[in-house]
Amino acid sequence: MQQILLTILLLTLSLSGRAQADYPPLFASTLAGAQEQVDAAMEQAFLVPTPVDMAGGYTHEVHKQNWKTLENAGALYRLTGEEKYAAFVRDGLLQYAEAYPTWPLHPTDRSYATGKIFWQALNDANWLVYVSQAYADIYDWLEPAVRTKLNTELFRPMADFLSVENPQFFNRIHNHSTWGNAAVGMIGLVMDDEELVQRALYGIPASELPEDLRDDDSGRIVSESGRAGFLAQLDLSFSPDGYFTEGPYYLRYALSPFLLFGRALAEKRPDMNILAYRNSILGKAIDALLLEADPRGDFFPLNDSQKGMSLYAPEVVKSVDYGYALYGRDPGLLSLAREQGSVTLDKEGLLVATDLAAGKARPFQPHSIAFTDGPDGDEGGVGILRAYGQGDEQTTLVMKYSAQGMGHGHFDKLSYSLYDLTGEVIQDYGAARWVNIDQKGGGRYLPENQTWAKQTVAHNTLVIDRTSHYEGDIRIGENHHPDLYAFRADDTTFQLVSAVSENAYDGRKLQRAQWLLQDTAFEHPVLIDLFRATGERPAVHELPTWYMGQLMRTDFGYTTENILQPLDSAHGYQHLFLEATGRPDADMATIEWFGNGRFYTQTMATESGDEILFVRPGANDPEFNLRRDPGFLLRRADVASSTFFSVLESHGSYNPREEVARDPFGTITGLRILVDSEPYTALEFTHQSGTTWLILFSNATADPDQEHTLNINGQSYQWRGVHHLIKQ
Amino acid sequence: MQQILLTILLLTLSLSGRAQADYPPLFASTLAGAQEQVDAAMEQAFLVPTPVDMAGGYTHEVHKQNWKTLENAGALYRLTGEEKYAAFVRDGLLQYAEAYPTWPLHPTDRSYATGKIFWQALNDANWLVYVSQAYADIYDWLEPAVRTKLNTELFRPMADFLSVENPQFFNRIHNHSTWGNAAVGMIGLVMDDEELVQRALYGIPASELPEDLRDDDSGRIVSESGRAGFLAQLDLSFSPDGYFTEGPYYLRYALSPFLLFGRALAEKRPDMNILAYRNSILGKAIDALLLEADPRGDFFPLNDSQKGMSLYAPEVVKSVDYGYALYGRDPGLLSLAREQGSVTLDKEGLLVATDLAAGKARPFQPHSIAFTDGPDGDEGGVGILRAYGQGDEQTTLVMKYSAQGMGHGHFDKLSYSLYDLTGEVIQDYGAARWVNIDQKGGGRYLPENQTWAKQTVAHNTLVIDRTSHYEGDIRIGENHHPDLYAFRADDTTFQLVSAVSENAYDGRKLQRAQWLLQDTAFEHPVLIDLFRATGERPAVHELPTWYMGQLMRTDFGYTTENILQPLDSAHGYQHLFLEATGRPDADMATIEWFGNGRFYTQTMATESGDEILFVRPGANDPEFNLRRDPGFLLRRADVASSTFFSVLESHGSYNPREEVARDPFGTITGLRILVDSEPYTALEFTHQSGTTWLILFSNATADPDQEHTLNINGQSYQWRGVHHLIKQ
Ligand SMILES: [Ca+2]
Ligand SMILES: [Ca+2]
Ligand SMILES: [Ca+2]
Ligand SMILES: [Mg+2]
Ligand SMILES: [Mg+2]
Ligand SMILES: [Mg+2]
Ligand SMILES: [Mg+2]
Repeated sequence: MQQILLTILLLTLSLSGRAQADYPPLFASTLAGAQEQVDAAMEQAFLVPTPVDMAGGYTHEVHKQNWKTLENAGALYRLTGEEKYAAFVRDGLLQYAEAYPTWPLHPTDRSYATGKIFWQALNDANWLVYVSQAYADIYDWLEPAVRTKLNTELFRPMADFLSVENPQFFNRIHNHSTWGNAAVGMIGLVMDDEELVQRALYGIPASELPEDLRDDDSGRIVSESGRAGFLAQLDLSFSPDGYFTEGPYYLRYALSPFLLFGRALAEKRPDMNILAYRNSILGKAIDALLLEADPRGDFFPLNDSQKGMSLYAPEVVKSVDYGYALYGRDPGLLSLAREQGSVTLDKEGLLVATDLAAGKARPFQPHSIAFTDGPDGDEGGVGILRAYGQGDEQTTLVMKYSAQGMGHGHFDKLSYSLYDLTGEVIQDYGAARWVNIDQKGGGRYLPENQTWAKQTVAHNTLVIDRTSHYEGDIRIGENHHPDLYAFRADDTTFQLVSAVSENAYDGRKLQRAQWLLQDTAFEHPVLIDLFRATGERPAVHELPTWYMGQLMRTDFGYTTENILQPLDSAHGYQHLFLEATGRPDADMATIEWFGNGRFYTQTMATESGDEILFVRPGANDPEFNLRRDPGFLLRRADVASSTFFSVLESHGSYNPREEVARDPFGTITGLRILVDSEPYTALEFTHQSGTTWLILFSNATADPDQEHTLNINGQSYQWRGVHHLIKQ
Repeated sequence: MQQILLTILLLTLSLSGRAQADYPPLFASTLAGAQEQVDAAMEQAFLVPTPVDMAGGYTHEVHKQNWKTLENAGALYRLTGEEKYAAFVRDGLLQYAEAYPTWPLHPTDRSYATGKIFWQALNDANWLVYVSQAYADIYDWLEPAVRTKLNTELFRPMADFLSVENPQFFNRIHNHSTWGNAAVGMIGLVMDDEELVQRALYGIPASELPEDLRDDDSGRIVSESGRAGFLAQLDLSFSPDGYFTEGPYYLRYALSPFLLFGRALAEKRPDMNILAYRNSILGKAIDALLLEADPRGDFFPLNDSQKGMSLYAPEVVKSVDYGYALYGRDPGLLSLAREQGSVTLDKEGLLVATDLAAGKARPFQPHSIAFTDGPDGDEGGVGILRAYGQGDEQTTLVMKYSAQGMGHGHFDKLSYSLYDLTGEVIQDYGAARWVNIDQKGGGRYLPENQTWAKQTVAHNTLVIDRTSHYEGDIRIGENHHPDLYAFRADDTTFQLVSAVSENAYDGRKLQRAQWLLQDTAFEHPVLIDLFRATGERPAVHELPTWYMGQLMRTDFGYTTENILQPLDSAHGYQHLFLEATGRPDADMATIEWFGNGRFYTQTMATESGDEILFVRPGANDPEFNLRRDPGFLLRRADVASSTFFSVLESHGSYNPREEVARDPFGTITGLRILVDSEPYTALEFTHQSGTTWLILFSNATADPDQEHTLNINGQSYQWRGVHHLIKQ
């Protein structure tokens, strides 16, 4: 019976005039939430106060709430056919039409592009994007005279204000401009105003702009490419596979105007086939967003990211729903939608809710992928390995070899982070910022974001001579990037990502290779890490591991400090207290910790003279802005070149309700670097059962067809391709 | 239909020979789990290896698993009537009957009472308690000859071994002996061996013991009271209201033999009416356990407790089921049972599962209560205030004014901890121990348990001259205890717990009063804290607050240290690094933090010269045994007497998925101590709305009928009883 109903829904997909009870549960509950909100608002007077306040202030919050209420009311009219909602939208818009023409620029004058409704034009554009949707919902219902009044007295002036009157806002290649383009284009589509639509798609022609127009950083507005507008944004904002150079935290924010205008164009200008534009770049950007999250759904905290932003954040609902409905109907996305608990109030959201109710959902099991960075896809990237172990539990490795990531980038070349079902295992620190929390620097980036969070030592990658990559200078960083060396994910039991940086340190080549190995000898996939640094001059090499948890035990002695001092004076080291110094044996060292109910054991190849420095941020932190998470550095001084090799096991469990420690010990009893030459590195590690794994790796070529021969201790090994695994 | 079935079940309550499908869901699923375990075990050989290993070793784990398998198999025969399970138990026991008589003492010789099956007699007693239940289940089914063989060759010798052959194990007032008593008594009940039952109930007569029998600490075995056995344990192990002096973590462990033997006696010796013994002490002990948990269900980490032990731990299932079935049928306990996800495989568990399936569960909403400590209930106690705010969210305050708590006690007199739905707000550190985690000192108490976790400064209570209570000497501590001064929980909007210590510091009286105030002006209940210390000699007063979370802001300046040094040299201070020193104004100081999605603001009355020391454990911690949780001390030096007053607000929320900070600021704009004399203290605090609360408190008498008159600034206040609240 329900099945029949759903089938009918699917066949008709006409959204107008239904009772809520006719909709599938998730759509109905989302609609009911919107109705509750709008009904409550309709019992109050609709206020359109003269703008005076900054973000957080009264007039700002009222106008922000208005766009949400109008958007919901428009959707309610469209979905229920109840005219009271259309009338409410009309009357609200008429109030704006009376007031808006009388408003001068917002009095705050704090932005490079001051708005009229809000302190910045960006928020005016947000308003117009969302209100355009409400206007579209009631447009045909309106009396022609009202329509004409709103078009000419409210919306066209607003669209001109956001574009030709503020080209420094509208015409950049920048996510602010994307909002402006989308706002102008979406209202143009509603009013069938072709001039606005063309302006949105292609920007204001450079010939019509003042010669010396500058943005807030004094850059020339006219871009290098000479292009502007929505299509230029689509071409230049993403790499060819949808990666956003600032990382997923910013992609989640930037994606909204792309998706909303894109969807409107798809509906109103089907001939453009915008969804297929640039090889379906909008679908790829959605994929890129959804693939950059850990097994709990939290986005990888690459570059400046506040931790905890998630696949399940409200902002990501439209990525999931449009991703499903417009690109491929991946049933894994239905699981995400169910967890999100709401859908978009449009035909895409209805399809998601309908298919979900029809039992089409499958587990969301994102795959391994190597994203390229840069508009042409030739500026490094991010490699993500995912292994599915017992119970389909996901272990996720992220290696970052991307471009600098503009102002929000970190000096984190070849750094990695590791995740499992419990969350972060080896963390990226993220940003030093509490977004929108006034007590912490007004919610802005904190000074420690620059002095700590961006610095190389805050990441799981090699630091040379206690100096950050590119000398910690973004101007140098923006000219360089590492490159992917090899990515092999076809064999899901032995996956590789490897990258090379020639520029992070002058005169040094850094190469990292990381494998996720799945083998019945291990409870969970094992991380194998090889880091080769080659140079001419002796230097201090320090490789940090930012583990999450409580140190359990080491197999070497260490001396703790009872007076803590900063480890050094710059490049993030000024924030590290040295808590202990260990002197491992000259063959291998093991560090065990416990985090989030599970045990972890890292076994590292060591050399004579190596030290392990146990550190913790907190020094030179005058306002308690830094988290006190532990880490350790494997330190090797006075070497020109050096190779680091480690294996990380996850094993066992402990629950304080049961107090039984299951498999608390690692199982690797030996490891060593058998060969380390310019062409080849050979790694070996041994399980307590006696089983030994040998990894042969070609440092010089990743050509999959290249044949290799390597002699080790009189035995000759032959293989084809970049790496070879032998279990014996 | 289901309802009818359940009603029939309730009426018959005959457990024998049913198919699983006949049982209510929770009982059926528990039974299915047991069946799965036993069926798997029955496919293997049943092993009874000659004992050689310590805990964790092979023979130890096999015999431990055997007792569980036999217990489950017995239950399966009883509940399904399938004879294969009875035969399995019989054959297993016959194997033990062959082997046991041939075993010498366990070869380890590491215990004051070495066992035969295990390294300590305690574990032999565990074995016998559980296996007695299996034996009871098949006793009537057995052929008489087999019964006789098992009785005479296995169980009677084992019972004698655990009692008359090891009186130093059997005859103490101690939880080890309770296990011994229960084991001997339960097997005696099965075999109808009256001599064993009497021995279990009353112990071995002192006249039959060697004169100078000593236990492991060289104490005489014959107790002060001259009593031994199960009834003596019932009389002496708990306070009259069921409180266990070592706290809930140990109560949870100690309660099993009490409940299992108690239940067996109730069935086999109904004339004894053991369930009503000592005013239903077993029911009170269950209540005490279930009432000593925070809103998430975690037990308060009083004394030596590992954090995370919970109402939902497997060990607590029988407390909930027997508490429900045998004492009062509180429908709140059904919610706990549902969350536990299993029931006891007996008629009590069936009743719980049946009533749960019948929809009788109600939310578990534990109430405020003041527990007394000591066998006579005159050795202080623990006061628990619970306020239910918006959405019935529970805020829980625990003040500890109990006796020392024997070897597991802490120097924590008048300390408190605070909890809300998110967990710990103001924490008690708990123990420095990882139970059963071999890497950390073999799972034993760590040295830092003594040097840090037990010390006064590790708790939220006043420290004088950087010395722990009772000079940190358990021998002094065991001779004293604070006393409850007042407990008022009838008015749920204004609840009080107050206690006095005259002995923690020589020549000083400490009095603390804490209120939970519920008022519409505040989102959550507010904690009001008054701490008066009076003495003759000037001293340093330091009041710690061990907050959970990230420091947000203070309303005073502070200077952070870039070189961290231990704060002092003893009494726990040697473990504290001083991170910053603040100098608040001479009227009040505010500290704001963010923890677990919520904001907290503590506003404190200050005096000229007060300092705030921001501290963190980690100094003199050579093996990284201590957690780095932050705290601050309000320090007032060179005063003989001093009074501390603070108010703690919980407010707002922040979720990184939404990035909206709701109500991030506290609302208290002023507070001061208006009067502080020997008879009276008057406290005032003001809300940003202008509303002021005045609390009048009688320091000298808590008599509820006493009339008081107090003049403050020319105004006369009159009231009756220990305290009075005026909102104006
Ligand atoms: Ca610029
Ligand atoms: Ca003793
Ligand atoms: Ca002040
Ligand atoms: Mg980073
Ligand atoms: Mg390039
Ligand atoms: Mg304690
Ligand atoms: Mg007394």
